Amino acid sequence: MTTITDLVVSDVRFPTSELLDGSDAMNPDPDYSAAYVEVRTSDPGLSGFGMTFTIGRGNELCCAAIEAFAPHVIGRDLDAIEDDLGSIATALTHDSQLRWLGPEKGVVHLATAALVNAQWDLLARRAGMPLWSYLADLEPEAIVSAVDWRHLSDALTPDDAVAMLRTRVPGRTEREAYLRAEGYPAYVTSAGWLGYDDDKVRDRCRRALAEGWTALKMKVGVDLEDDLRRARLIRDEIGPDRLLMLDANQVWDVDPAIEAVKVLAEVDPYWIEEPTSPDDVLGHARIREAIAPIRVATGEHAHNRVMYKQLLQAGAIDVAQIDGCRLGGVNEVIAVLLLAARFDVPVCPHAGGVALCEHVQQFSMFDHVAVSGSLDGRMIEYADHLHEQMVDPVVVSEGRYRAPTASGLGVQIRPDAVERFRFPDGGHWS
Amino acid sequence: MTTITDLVVSDVRFPTSELLDGSDAMNPDPDYSAAYVEVRTSDPGLSGFGMTFTIGRGNELCCAAIEAFAPHVIGRDLDAIEDDLGSIATALTHDSQLRWLGPEKGVVHLATAALVNAQWDLLARRAGMPLWSYLADLEPEAIVSAVDWRHLSDALTPDDAVAMLRTRVPGRTEREAYLRAEGYPAYVTSAGWLGYDDDKVRDRCRRALAEGWTALKMKVGVDLEDDLRRARLIRDEIGPDRLLMLDANQVWDVDPAIEAVKVLAEVDPYWIEEPTSPDDVLGHARIREAIAPIRVATGEHAHNRVMYKQLLQAGAIDVAQIDGCRLGGVNEVIAVLLLAARFDVPVCPHAGGVALCEHVQQFSMFDHVAVSGSLDGRMIEYADHLHEQMVDPVVVSEGRYRAPTASGLGVQIRPDAVERFRFPDGGHWS
Repeated sequence: MTTITDLVVSDVRFPTSELLDGSDAMNPDPDYSAAYVEVRTSDPGLSGFGMTFTIGRGNELCCAAIEAFAPHVIGRDLDAIEDDLGSIATALTHDSQLRWLGPEKGVVHLATAALVNAQWDLLARRAGMPLWSYLADLEPEAIVSAVDWRHLSDALTPDDAVAMLRTRVPGRTEREAYLRAEGYPAYVTSAGWLGYDDDKVRDRCRRALAEGWTALKMKVGVDLEDDLRRARLIRDEIGPDRLLMLDANQVWDVDPAIEAVKVLAEVDPYWIEEPTSPDDVLGHARIREAIAPIRVATGEHAHNRVMYKQLLQAGAIDVAQIDGCRLGGVNEVIAVLLLAARFDVPVCPHAGGVALCEHVQQFSMFDHVAVSGSLDGRMIEYADHLHEQMVDPVVVSEGRYRAPTASGLGVQIRPDAVERFRFPDGGHWS
Repeated sequence: MTTITDLVVSDVRFPTSELLDGSDAMNPDPDYSAAYVEVRTSDPGLSGFGMTFTIGRGNELCCAAIEAFAPHVIGRDLDAIEDDLGSIATALTHDSQLRWLGPEKGVVHLATAALVNAQWDLLARRAGMPLWSYLADLEPEAIVSAVDWRHLSDALTPDDAVAMLRTRVPGRTEREAYLRAEGYPAYVTSAGWLGYDDDKVRDRCRRALAEGWTALKMKVGVDLEDDLRRARLIRDEIGPDRLLMLDANQVWDVDPAIEAVKVLAEVDPYWIEEPTSPDDVLGHARIREAIAPIRVATGEHAHNRVMYKQLLQAGAIDVAQIDGCRLGGVNEVIAVLLLAARFDVPVCPHAGGVALCEHVQQFSMFDHVAVSGSLDGRMIEYADHLHEQMVDPVVVSEGRYRAPTASGLGVQIRPDAVERFRFPDGGHWS
């Protein structure tokens, strides 16, 4: 019997604001950070790692929230967790006192993601499998049992989800073999950060093309004229056939978003991302109707499955951009993958930051093998930040994520990096 | 010149779970708590008090979030704040790094409410006026300047809001005089907590009638048969003419909510409150359509103005139940009062807990004098908990809130209560 014995929580902050990496219309100076947890077990050789991603100040709040949840996790037996895959997630989201602070949103939900994902890291490590493959090997009933179905039945029921997953069982082996051989399609967000000057943008575009990328994303939203100038520059660099996505990071109101996209339509954008408030389901629906055939993408700030349910029911999005730490961990990611498949909307996860790429590659590959069964319109975001700090960094080549082979979720930060960038007492900060 | 010099933050928790006061379908054992802040100034005789309400565990996270916001508040001059009424609220919600933890939801937004409300307490105390009267004396342009208009213009613009407020200027004096003479209508939620047995419910009903209440609310949602039995008991006690409201505290899915309300229709409910997930705008709209003429009420967990905008645009609610600490303080309360008036939906605030009654009486009275100008369908919730811990407790008689006369917002907790119930080192807890 292997039980969870204790949590070691670290507030890790990388000083990315110094280079304006990651700068956009809403977030001018992020310090990419992780509220990072090692879940230790009675087996000294087995720990699980989870984290939530933040952009600096306030990371300590997520760390404190992880500590507040500790009594729900410590003492649990891994076999019992594997027999009831939703047990930890439900214990955390149903803690009635802590639930008041959300519910299922904000700091407590970000902390939930860290602990829930650490659970899955533990299970997959123990099984000696990368998480995507561990998940894809589960029976449909087991996958569905991981989901908290409360508030979803008007869109999808557990029985319908099992039936849908059953139709995907044939072909699992072939799709898994395909991913191991060919990887998963991706796009890159390293060229168009708002803080970069034109020379740097041009240079990054050329580098991206040389590396084999065929889809690129740029930031817009501070000044429309400047957006158009930079978008033309990038379109000019990448030519007419590659995909160019635009990301407004929530800055517009609904009507101004429609007007701006109509201007930016000149550069043939593939999608507009976060055109307005992430809470505005109806606003996204109006924007989508007005700007078709340009796609509407959102989701990195969609905080739970009920928000995704509505985005899908309202026909508000063409692309669902799940985040590996904004949703309450793997269990809720599964819920959203099932909902998206039910509504036939492709999932193109949000990534970048600290280890978000490492998280979402697992989810997209699981989605392909066991849930949607499709690569149609699907790509994972890639940004070239901080992978060198990871024990098992993503491998990306020729514009594709290569299937992870290391056991677990793969979000362990290198111990020396944790020491150096721990806030405020690590070597870099003190 | 009077400037803000420092913050004193206290984690105050009252052990209400011992008596099952406040128990409902989602919250079986709340310990009513306050993340409480005293904002001190260079004038030793002038402090402002604000708080956010939680139900126990996690209150420390809100306290820490208030501390994280301190640099945006300390050093400000009160005259400058009064000249730019949105400056503190905007500084807090636009802090790009802390914003990531919401945005505008969860722990950081609850903490925002505490600090923003303390600002208004300071201004109204300095003016020697109760907050409702201080607000109602502002020019329409000043009221509108307090609002963060981002993401609202598809529903209401600042110009339209000013125009609407201008139409309410005539009659302000009469309405203010009316409130001072007659008070504001209310309903009571002290009879139907789920943890009470039938005898206690019956006894509380009789006491409520003896005190002059004509509208009562009960909790439902754990077991439909039991809900119906208890509802019949209450209806039997209060007779056919008084109002009976039902509160499900989010436990149902959309279709089960519709089915349950159809069963409970037997007791002629005035509204069903929180029938499903507080995030589910579309779900509330479907429920409302299916159960009319029974009203749908929600809002105590509607976390920001964009959620209210959608609830109103979608025709999802008959009653908007703003909370004094869930929204980001007075500034966002004003935004929602304006939106509700624009859509002609009455605001019946959520109250109870710690000091929520003290908060919302100010907002409803301001609404009546300067925003909606109407009492039609409007009542403030009242629950008889913890008022004895307040320096300026609400005065309620004959089923009405009496107009507050003390200066400020009125949410200062008695210093001896703060000492005794401070967690974990106060006398009660240590």
